[in-house]
Amino acid sequence: MVIGSIITPSTEDRMTGDGLAGRLAALVGEANLLIGEAISDDYRHDEALGVAPVTPAYVVKPGTAQEVASVLKLANDSRVPVTARGSGSGLSGGAVPRADGVVVSFERMASIAEIDTVNHTATVQPGVTLAQLDEATAKVGLAYQVHPGELSGSLGGNVNTNAGGMSAIRYGVTRQHVLGLEVVLATGEILRTGGKVSKVSSGYDLTQLIVGSEGTLALVTEAVLRLAPRLEHQTTLLAPFSTLDEVTRAVPKIVASGIGPTILEYIDMLTMAAISHNANLSLGIPDSVRDTAQAYLVVSLENRDADRLETDIETAGEQLGELGAIDVYVLPGPAARKLIEAREKAFWTAKAAGADCIIDTVVPRGAIPDFVAQASKIATEHGSYVIGCGHAGDGNVHFALFQKDPEARDQTLKAMFAAGMALGGMISGEHGIGQEKKKYFLELEDPTKIALMRRIKSAFDPNGILNPDILLVSPEGNA
Amino acid sequence: MVIGSIITPSTEDRMTGDGLAGRLAALVGEANLLIGEAISDDYRHDEALGVAPVTPAYVVKPGTAQEVASVLKLANDSRVPVTARGSGSGLSGGAVPRADGVVVSFERMASIAEIDTVNHTATVQPGVTLAQLDEATAKVGLAYQVHPGELSGSLGGNVNTNAGGMSAIRYGVTRQHVLGLEVVLATGEILRTGGKVSKVSSGYDLTQLIVGSEGTLALVTEAVLRLAPRLEHQTTLLAPFSTLDEVTRAVPKIVASGIGPTILEYIDMLTMAAISHNANLSLGIPDSVRDTAQAYLVVSLENRDADRLETDIETAGEQLGELGAIDVYVLPGPAARKLIEAREKAFWTAKAAGADCIIDTVVPRGAIPDFVAQASKIATEHGSYVIGCGHAGDGNVHFALFQKDPEARDQTLKAMFAAGMALGGMISGEHGIGQEKKKYFLELEDPTKIALMRRIKSAFDPNGILNPDILLVSPEGNA
Repeated sequence: MVIGSIITPSTEDRMTGDGLAGRLAALVGEANLLIGEAISDDYRHDEALGVAPVTPAYVVKPGTAQEVASVLKLANDSRVPVTARGSGSGLSGGAVPRADGVVVSFERMASIAEIDTVNHTATVQPGVTLAQLDEATAKVGLAYQVHPGELSGSLGGNVNTNAGGMSAIRYGVTRQHVLGLEVVLATGEILRTGGKVSKVSSGYDLTQLIVGSEGTLALVTEAVLRLAPRLEHQTTLLAPFSTLDEVTRAVPKIVASGIGPTILEYIDMLTMAAISHNANLSLGIPDSVRDTAQAYLVVSLENRDADRLETDIETAGEQLGELGAIDVYVLPGPAARKLIEAREKAFWTAKAAGADCIIDTVVPRGAIPDFVAQASKIATEHGSYVIGCGHAGDGNVHFALFQKDPEARDQTLKAMFAAGMALGGMISGEHGIGQEKKKYFLELEDPTKIALMRRIKSAFDPNGILNPDILLVSPEGNA
Repeated sequence: MVIGSIITPSTEDRMTGDGLAGRLAALVGEANLLIGEAISDDYRHDEALGVAPVTPAYVVKPGTAQEVASVLKLANDSRVPVTARGSGSGLSGGAVPRADGVVVSFERMASIAEIDTVNHTATVQPGVTLAQLDEATAKVGLAYQVHPGELSGSLGGNVNTNAGGMSAIRYGVTRQHVLGLEVVLATGEILRTGGKVSKVSSGYDLTQLIVGSEGTLALVTEAVLRLAPRLEHQTTLLAPFSTLDEVTRAVPKIVASGIGPTILEYIDMLTMAAISHNANLSLGIPDSVRDTAQAYLVVSLENRDADRLETDIETAGEQLGELGAIDVYVLPGPAARKLIEAREKAFWTAKAAGADCIIDTVVPRGAIPDFVAQASKIATEHGSYVIGCGHAGDGNVHFALFQKDPEARDQTLKAMFAAGMALGGMISGEHGIGQEKKKYFLELEDPTKIALMRRIKSAFDPNGILNPDILLVSPEGNA
């Protein structure tokens, strides 16, 4: 899976039509190929804190699946690495290119081909953003039920990282909402997998295999997504607790009650202080409560019927009280929206506060108290510091790690991931492995599993041109 | 992927401990190896109507994953084909063995290792049946939400066919409920994929790839399944309609209402007559209605709250009336259970009536009217006859095909599958391709996709020993 001969591009190449640049320009049009100075900073990075930006040799902006296919065929024949790029909001370095490679940017493939109101599906190009899809589906009373925090994120990126978000506890993650794909293989063939069908038992589920593969198996050029009737009525409760442990122990009990929250998030005291400050958020919590609260639980409920929602809120409020909440606040609509937006922006708050790494380890729901306790202990032992929040309902713990020393940071991360895995968890619940977590993935995962994944990678991409630095190739390059 | 040298077993082999039989007996114990006359008829077939039974050379009944691993290692070294067997209730010939092969029967691996009431998971061995799991989960107020009709079906078989069933419209199919697996690769390594985590973005989703792979990629030795709080209150409505077309056109509207039925089945007149007669079912429908009704819609609703259920029933009843139902009957509990059981046994009724093939094509929900009309036309053109019922809510149409002439049957099936695929559908929604539908799958599917699936198969099973006649190998044997 090592990339072979690399063609060095030059502006002359393009001028004369010779070499790779000229051939790429011929495939996508002069206006849709960027080289040299024309490549802006945006194409060099995503939002992973620990991955250095890299300027690619070429950026192409194809307009059709056929153009993507011709670019991949050329790249494959030339053994040039290819990195797919959506909106660059990823948190694992999955869109950071190779210096000798081509970035395939999907910014021109950003149309919603169809909202099917009979079959409840949306057919979208990879550059379509979550915000764009939400607007289009709202108009017809439907909703795409996955809510990763960053609404500027592209659906192509969401599919490739199997993005999660706050509503996963109720509706599942991206994987459960992708019914079909159009993809281009590394060798240039265009394939359709799945479709507007909600169940299939006809051969291997290629759709599911490509979802979450971080651009290493194929490039997604279209996705068929499952939609659902949009529920009209939402309410959010905020419950402060005296200890983080009480919060994390309350979670399985709320899930077991069957009340079905759409959001069940925990926010520790410092994260709450930071996001509230950052969003200029006033939630009407008395100082006396704020002084005592060590952690908060955010519970959102939604229903198609206002009365049922009302009853559910009462039930949830009572339950939170029984589980030890200091108080329970029913947030008015605007305050609730602001809190959820602030929580969604927790990453930006952590970044602004100087965080050195964001982790999103997932553990079994019931293991959250143990994991949070162990992670704090590990951080302290290594002179690191963590603050956190997380999708408590689905066991996905988000920590911002503060540790400037690379070696101590590395040790902290490795120990935390190992602790999560020992509790039956995985390194990433929704951000992906990318470049940033690859070292730990390759070190901590079962080698037999890694070897099998490499054979699968080769089945799709025999010359290893697709995102070769991501996921499966060790930093030393031996695949 | 062609099987190489085949060792011919003999009773002498076993007696002396030499040869494959002796080596297999040494691995699983003499009592757990069957050869020759000791192999009962059960091991020769599943329930597919169009696949001839085959007596395997060996049946082994391993007791542990380690034993499965040692059997596979030996089979792989000896290039002997292996067919996994659960309870043999499959409908596609996926458990019909090779004459020169080993059947690995999971009848001794039939324990529920754990019901985790905190994380809401069940960890089961492959031989555990749906009935067994239902009994165990009911005791702790939880439920496995997938309801394939045949409760004697094993979870190992369910995982391998990605079994669906009537509740798929609300809860999804097996795929959405498998969180993790323990599997044995063809080469004898034991792997764990996923776990008690509800979301993962850490490498390729091997769990999802193995679900629905019909025993061709790996043998499942344990599955971690998602459970949910068991809802207490259920009601079933039965709505006769004057035409089948009205029924199929009503379906998308009921789904769009957001009322969330757990069952939304259509049953055509003849199927209703047959299953009612067979189950001695009296539903209290007046003769005058029965004489007019050409098709029926069965709608089940469930809720954790009795009052909400009551209101939902009223809403659904009104909607069915508006959609043209001749009348709407709220079935009393015992009658509802009997009807649903009778519907689940539709296959046995069709078999008893002399059906020659069962198909379960899935199409987009909105395409059901078209598909049903086209399928009837195709049947008539070929002198065949179809009666049907189906999971209307998820587009999964079940037909019993009556056509004694093999050539006419073949032409009917091919035309029907082609029609379903042209409408955006797939050959099988939940039964799998197996041996019975393989010919059509290989003929009608995109050759690029088939080639990719074969490369994936090789990544798991380099010598092609796992279920070599299923899914991907053409009847002529060229893989």
